[in-house]
Amino acid sequence: MSAKLIDGRAVAKRLKTQTAALVDEVRLAGGSVRLDAVMVGDPSAGAIYARSQETRCQEVGIEYRLHALGTDATQEDVEGLIGRLNRDGAVTGILLNLPLPEGIDTPAVQYRIDPYKDVEGVNPSNIGLLFYDSPIMAPCTALAVMEILTEAGVDPKGMNACVVGIGPIAGRPIALFLQHEMATVTACHEATRDLAAHTSQADLLVVAVGVSGLIKAEHVKRGAVVIDVGINRVEEGGETKIVGDVDFEGVVGVAGAITPVPGGVGPVTVAMLLRSAVDAACRQRGPRRIEV
Amino acid sequence: MSAKLIDGRAVAKRLKTQTAALVDEVRLAGGSVRLDAVMVGDPSAGAIYARSQETRCQEVGIEYRLHALGTDATQEDVEGLIGRLNRDGAVTGILLNLPLPEGIDTPAVQYRIDPYKDVEGVNPSNIGLLFYDSPIMAPCTALAVMEILTEAGVDPKGMNACVVGIGPIAGRPIALFLQHEMATVTACHEATRDLAAHTSQADLLVVAVGVSGLIKAEHVKRGAVVIDVGINRVEEGGETKIVGDVDFEGVVGVAGAITPVPGGVGPVTVAMLLRSAVDAACRQRGPRRIEV
Repeated sequence: MSAKLIDGRAVAKRLKTQTAALVDEVRLAGGSVRLDAVMVGDPSAGAIYARSQETRCQEVGIEYRLHALGTDATQEDVEGLIGRLNRDGAVTGILLNLPLPEGIDTPAVQYRIDPYKDVEGVNPSNIGLLFYDSPIMAPCTALAVMEILTEAGVDPKGMNACVVGIGPIAGRPIALFLQHEMATVTACHEATRDLAAHTSQADLLVVAVGVSGLIKAEHVKRGAVVIDVGINRVEEGGETKIVGDVDFEGVVGVAGAITPVPGGVGPVTVAMLLRSAVDAACRQRGPRRIEV
Repeated sequence: MSAKLIDGRAVAKRLKTQTAALVDEVRLAGGSVRLDAVMVGDPSAGAIYARSQETRCQEVGIEYRLHALGTDATQEDVEGLIGRLNRDGAVTGILLNLPLPEGIDTPAVQYRIDPYKDVEGVNPSNIGLLFYDSPIMAPCTALAVMEILTEAGVDPKGMNACVVGIGPIAGRPIALFLQHEMATVTACHEATRDLAAHTSQADLLVVAVGVSGLIKAEHVKRGAVVIDVGINRVEEGGETKIVGDVDFEGVVGVAGAITPVPGGVGPVTVAMLLRSAVDAACRQRGPRRIEV
């Protein structure tokens, strides 16, 4: 028996079609959708990523602007730029590329992003509102995982869920979402003593570590839903391949459903970011619960 | 064999002595420590609680002021009052009593509290900073549990920890703290299918539900550390008794260490609130990472 494949590309395609239609609606209403990205540090490293962001925005009709600061940028420089983007009515969404250079207080910078323009939901205020199950904008990877579960007809309520990896961008927000959906969530990480003891009890296993081949067949309960958030570049026979944290070949024979890498969580996360950018634009003129 | 009793009153006494000394230091330096409590709704229900807050503050030399608004107070009224307390330099700490009347957006009100005066660490921004493991002020019950663990010589790293109850005031922040300390944390709640299956695997069991007698001997692993956050009023033979969520008589024979109720987490939480009030006062004139 082989697990049902969850097709992230199909989910992403559907989301992007909806998003493009929403962008048109905003335009027809006289508005616009614009995403301003902030990049701090080595410009050569960020350039490829920025071009990819721009292309993806253009595909759904979102205007994209890049603001690059050098490695010598100070806390005040970065916060000042974000403040200007907050006040600029033409900017409907702000994306802060990480990591920031050493010496910069990252959460303090994220705190400056207008919570209503915070398309990645990284402002501590937005994280706290998510914690209170009262979100305005939320982290895209977690939104993507929840969208995939909905798409696959998985209701986390009462499930034993195991999230491996507790990073602030993926694992930690995912665990919070699953908890709000009333799964019984166990969060594992590098200090977990017996990883397999936890993962093998999970009806729903989400892996977000960044170590290829970490999760093998023996880690997985038969019939479990396995969501692989990892994106790892590995060299194989002189070629670079993208693989997840899950040993797909081994686990596909045990799991009930599984997301592949590539073609799983990755494209849905990108699609969710674009969706959040439109959501932000739609809310720009609406009532606000909190003010910066 | 009987579990080691963790004496919360002794921990609280030591904390209060330190706090009173800190208040004196602040005074000698020309400052003051003042805690302003906001209470919205039925004044008769809140009066007893407010008097108790005042007494506790006075015990360590903290000035206490109560601001009561009626049940007809609007979102703007409550946020406006908090804004005035933020701007008042004499106010060094703000405490917002919950629950707020229906129709009030509680997280939006909490968001208005200056993060540096937020003695209970309930502002979504403070919650988010805690989530990023970069806190300014944090929820007092979670701080109390961590203090108790330190006092009892328990290092959560690598432990299987189970937190029962995922409320926003106690269970959810406690789970976050334990995760930061690298415990493998499982969060259980009313939708958990087999509670005993999870709790009986836990080296560290924290219970914060509000149901007396919920956790019995059969739920507990032999030798486990059991922290009972519950405070429940029960009638027994015509008398009102305070008990926790843990069936103390049964569990004391199985656990390795246990906090009693009363005399466990409760007094330490109060002491932690007072400590946070002094911390806030000490930071009033210092540098700030974030601004309201």
